[in-house]
Amino acid sequence: MAVLITGIGELTTNDDELGTLTGAAIVFDGPAIAWVGPAAAAPDADERIDVEGRAALPGWVDSHTHLVFAGDRTAEFEARMAGQPYSAGGIAVTVDATRAATDAELTANLRRHVSEAVRQGTTCLETKTGYGLTVADEVRAARIAAAVADEVTFLGAHLVPPGADAASYVDLVCGEMLDAVAGSVRWADVFCETGAFDEAQSERVLRAAARRGLGLRVHGNQLGPGPGVRLAVRMGAASVDHCSHLSDSDVEALASSDTVATLLPACDLSTRQPLAPARRLLDAGATVALATNANPGSSYTTSMGFCVATAVLQMGLSVAEAVRAATLGGARALRRTDVGVLRPGARADLHVLDAPSRTHLAYRPGVPLTWRVWRRGSRVA
Amino acid sequence: MAVLITGIGELTTNDDELGTLTGAAIVFDGPAIAWVGPAAAAPDADERIDVEGRAALPGWVDSHTHLVFAGDRTAEFEARMAGQPYSAGGIAVTVDATRAATDAELTANLRRHVSEAVRQGTTCLETKTGYGLTVADEVRAARIAAAVADEVTFLGAHLVPPGADAASYVDLVCGEMLDAVAGSVRWADVFCETGAFDEAQSERVLRAAARRGLGLRVHGNQLGPGPGVRLAVRMGAASVDHCSHLSDSDVEALASSDTVATLLPACDLSTRQPLAPARRLLDAGATVALATNANPGSSYTTSMGFCVATAVLQMGLSVAEAVRAATLGGARALRRTDVGVLRPGARADLHVLDAPSRTHLAYRPGVPLTWRVWRRGSRVA
Ligand SMILES: [Zn+2]
Ligand SMILES: [Zn+2]
Repeated sequence: MAVLITGIGELTTNDDELGTLTGAAIVFDGPAIAWVGPAAAAPDADERIDVEGRAALPGWVDSHTHLVFAGDRTAEFEARMAGQPYSAGGIAVTVDATRAATDAELTANLRRHVSEAVRQGTTCLETKTGYGLTVADEVRAARIAAAVADEVTFLGAHLVPPGADAASYVDLVCGEMLDAVAGSVRWADVFCETGAFDEAQSERVLRAAARRGLGLRVHGNQLGPGPGVRLAVRMGAASVDHCSHLSDSDVEALASSDTVATLLPACDLSTRQPLAPARRLLDAGATVALATNANPGSSYTTSMGFCVATAVLQMGLSVAEAVRAATLGGARALRRTDVGVLRPGARADLHVLDAPSRTHLAYRPGVPLTWRVWRRGSRVA
Repeated sequence: MAVLITGIGELTTNDDELGTLTGAAIVFDGPAIAWVGPAAAAPDADERIDVEGRAALPGWVDSHTHLVFAGDRTAEFEARMAGQPYSAGGIAVTVDATRAATDAELTANLRRHVSEAVRQGTTCLETKTGYGLTVADEVRAARIAAAVADEVTFLGAHLVPPGADAASYVDLVCGEMLDAVAGSVRWADVFCETGAFDEAQSERVLRAAARRGLGLRVHGNQLGPGPGVRLAVRMGAASVDHCSHLSDSDVEALASSDTVATLLPACDLSTRQPLAPARRLLDAGATVALATNANPGSSYTTSMGFCVATAVLQMGLSVAEAVRAATLGGARALRRTDVGVLRPGARADLHVLDAPSRTHLAYRPGVPLTWRVWRRGSRVA
């Protein structure tokens, strides 16, 4: 069934030829886009919806979340706001609670957070394992994630589990654990940071994942300067995420690679890290994505709108750049061409704002602006 | 009719004796609170609503907005984000559009923004005149505001209208304009800033307002150091608003006065000003309020939640301090004892979050957390 959405005051397509249209319309045919163009030239359809001048854009592509979890870390957040620094060690609290939860509990919690994201305009979401850290618990997390999320990343190398020996744990991740999960995930990731995995350990994990055909991602340069970005670029990772502390050579390496710099401003604020140097990256020619890093420890938000507003108000991006990073940038970080863009053949994922332009996303920070959301051609909010 | 709201997981009362309760209930009798206490001890009521463990707090008191306006300044915001500094001169654009609008248009625009604020938990809202700048247009703005807002402030001294002579305009404000509006407003305010009114002009306006029995407020120290805070304290103003640039003596003056320092973090971010020194003010013993400064120029948001999250994540306030500033602080800035607090006799203005604690307001930035809102005992969201 064809659905015509018309009366779009401003349509951000992210397509090089279509650009940003005013007075636009879009036609969905089932789960895909059939037509995009001026409202006056729109073809007939079975159903016609007039959005009365509102702005529309591709649904957000949130390319970095950790939503297969249980437990509560509110008190840790409060302590951090009172001056206690963020440490990766807090992850162990979530690991204990996640292992203790039933499949049904984990699934319900994941679905609840994904629904919350969808209501705010997210239509493509990646999520990670990494709160299991045993073969059985990581396989379980991957299975639960795959049933709900668009993209699943194996993050067995999130933290050395308390009580375990780092070398043996890396052996486990690179061998038995990867063997067990590789069939149910597309990506592998490693937390390359002081307190988690060093460069050599991280490289071992990435090489073992690549041998099993997985795409690569890296958590790097979050809490200080480090080898994460260099490693990600050297290994041809699809993205390196965080990038709060970058040297000039890190920026140059990203600019001359296909590795996307995925910035997580809500995490930077929630951990009192400097906001990532988005402007330097864009000026150098790197591809930038914005994502939430939704997780109960360092960034407990599903709001891509908050990330976009922060990028504009505090990181020097224009609204067009920030919106692009939160849609097309995320798609590139996931090496997908079917989302983050509105053109014939792309997925029918549309976010209509209760505002006349995308600028309102930064001009009106905190105001809930999502009016309607379609995902794969179905209205979901 | 008595309504019992029970099952409140965490109840912030802002009352010194009641404090913050867990497992609490509250009873409304018509527009006022009849009882607050432990759920197990709650009296009977005609209607019983179980909020199932959610957190509740007083409705936000937004003590600083400029919502009697027409016209659009989206392009000015975009230019500012691209590097053009904020200047008070942009206000003239809104003045032209506001004068040209009909009463019905201004009322509809005001109501739309107030409804948006209410849906986000605001239950007491101040708004200002100041986009009229003629006797007739200021009187009209005051009348329109009084029909919708809880508190109305006369801000004829917002800007010297383009083409007018400053000295004659101050004469007009202090004479005919104040005579015409004094009966329909409780407060008078002046924009004491380079490019608007200097200290002597501001003092004349405040003295003229005080002679007519109006309470005083001052816009001060927004774009740079200045005399606004000193003047406000000297004149016994209820609040001085902005306070982005404070000397140590400004902080001391506020701490030893009854003048509330009203901070407007969304405005600071939207104009690329430094965030006001909230921590210094609280540590010195000043009373701090948080407000949106909702207006189409420097801060186009109605989101008190965004202000609270920013205060915690970036201004060094605890969640308890930020929530208090956005409720009780606003009430103090408006010299009201019936709002911003939950105790018998206070107004039945309750904000229930879809979260187990108020901490989530900062822990989950950008996520819409308002679940239900009651104002004067009636459910409004
Ligand atoms: Zn992460
Ligand atoms: Zn103001």
